[in-house]
Amino acid sequence: MPDDTNSPDVDRPGHGYSSSRRGFLAGTLALGGAAAGLGTPPLAAGAEPAKGGAAVVNPRLFTFVGGKAGGWSVVSAKAIIGDPLPAAERVDIVHGAVDVLPDGGKWKLRGVTSNGRYTTEDEKQRMAKKQADLGRPKATHAALIPIRKNAKWWALAQDERRAIFEDRSRHIAIGLKYLPAIARRLHHCRDLGESEPFDFLTLFDYAKADAAAFDDLVAELRATEEWKFVDREVDIRLVRVS
Amino acid sequence: MPDDTNSPDVDRPGHGYSSSRRGFLAGTLALGGAAAGLGTPPLAAGAEPAKGGAAVVNPRLFTFVGGKAGGWSVVSAKAIIGDPLPAAERVDIVHGAVDVLPDGGKWKLRGVTSNGRYTTEDEKQRMAKKQADLGRPKATHAALIPIRKNAKWWALAQDERRAIFEDRSRHIAIGLKYLPAIARRLHHCRDLGESEPFDFLTLFDYAKADAAAFDDLVAELRATEEWKFVDREVDIRLVRVS
Repeated sequence: MPDDTNSPDVDRPGHGYSSSRRGFLAGTLALGGAAAGLGTPPLAAGAEPAKGGAAVVNPRLFTFVGGKAGGWSVVSAKAIIGDPLPAAERVDIVHGAVDVLPDGGKWKLRGVTSNGRYTTEDEKQRMAKKQADLGRPKATHAALIPIRKNAKWWALAQDERRAIFEDRSRHIAIGLKYLPAIARRLHHCRDLGESEPFDFLTLFDYAKADAAAFDDLVAELRATEEWKFVDREVDIRLVRVS
Repeated sequence: MPDDTNSPDVDRPGHGYSSSRRGFLAGTLALGGAAAGLGTPPLAAGAEPAKGGAAVVNPRLFTFVGGKAGGWSVVSAKAIIGDPLPAAERVDIVHGAVDVLPDGGKWKLRGVTSNGRYTTEDEKQRMAKKQADLGRPKATHAALIPIRKNAKWWALAQDERRAIFEDRSRHIAIGLKYLPAIARRLHHCRDLGESEPFDFLTLFDYAKADAAAFDDLVAELRATEEWKFVDREVDIRLVRVS
């Protein structure tokens, strides 16, 4: 879950998923799946994207591809609220764009890491002290949880959303309890240039021993007032391949 | 200016620019410049964008094309902070995507309208009571002001950004003074899938008689603490053609 789920509402822009099968060029401007034959090579890196049709991929963009390939094997995929996603055996986590769905691909979901939308400086510091980055060797288990919030949520003013998110739902406080065991990275989809099926994609990882704690975390969040605004949620559990 | 400029931090998703030369299909899911030969026809409207490569344009996406065509004539274009944009005679305001720069096109800038990031419910209601929509017949003058904020801004927590934005810079309060004379629409670029040269594009329109008031508005905002975080700003003044 997202700007809105598990724990903190803090992102780590450009922070990659180093344990993924696919290496990526952290910190470079133009990324793509080209190295693995999945995407289109980045065009005109360094040029002003505004000038022509050749756009440079946002360095904070990640693509999740459900299909037959990828470093993560799907253990389960459940529609918690609303429609499910087509069944996939594997998930490939790509830092960058994937323009064409590969052979056997069932779906792809995209999102960008961004600035936090609700977290105060105090909360941010408390999280920074406890949290771990994705990709720890022991974090062999993961969850990809895409969610969408309804129109009523998006029509709320900032102070109302913050009040629901934290004052009443304790989203950050709940997440903090599970740090550092559960690491996460939040990706925003709602303000991409294309219509996306979800507003947020959150990727979590954790050790096998913390799988029950992760279940507790999502159960706590799903019981909150904030979750009354979620109108689609899919919960995809993953284990690292090899 | 933007989530951060002129006045209110409130957007009107999907609200079009009805006085523009180019009509658009407000409320439909897939939009594009195709009708005028500028863009690519929207693909697979109604299909789940996640399934294949054919993406449906975000209905909140707008594209501004600087070149030789369009319903707005460029009166002046000044780099206020940082690099200018290439000179253009006209600006075309397109609700939707423009995949290929048309003949004579010098630049294109894209952004999506979105939820407000700072406005409280009280502020939102005060603005709603006073503000006008873009496209009034008398609003023959306009300004397109792209800006970018620096990394320091984006690293701030939500409460710190709000404190600078409103408590100390009075961004919303300043904007309110100029309602309803100055209408505006804010577009977000930072979380698009491609790297964009600006974080925000704000389009303003007003009657000729209010042009001096608009100058006052931007001068007030540029004198704020918030503006110390702006590292690129271009001010493009426009008049409606015909």
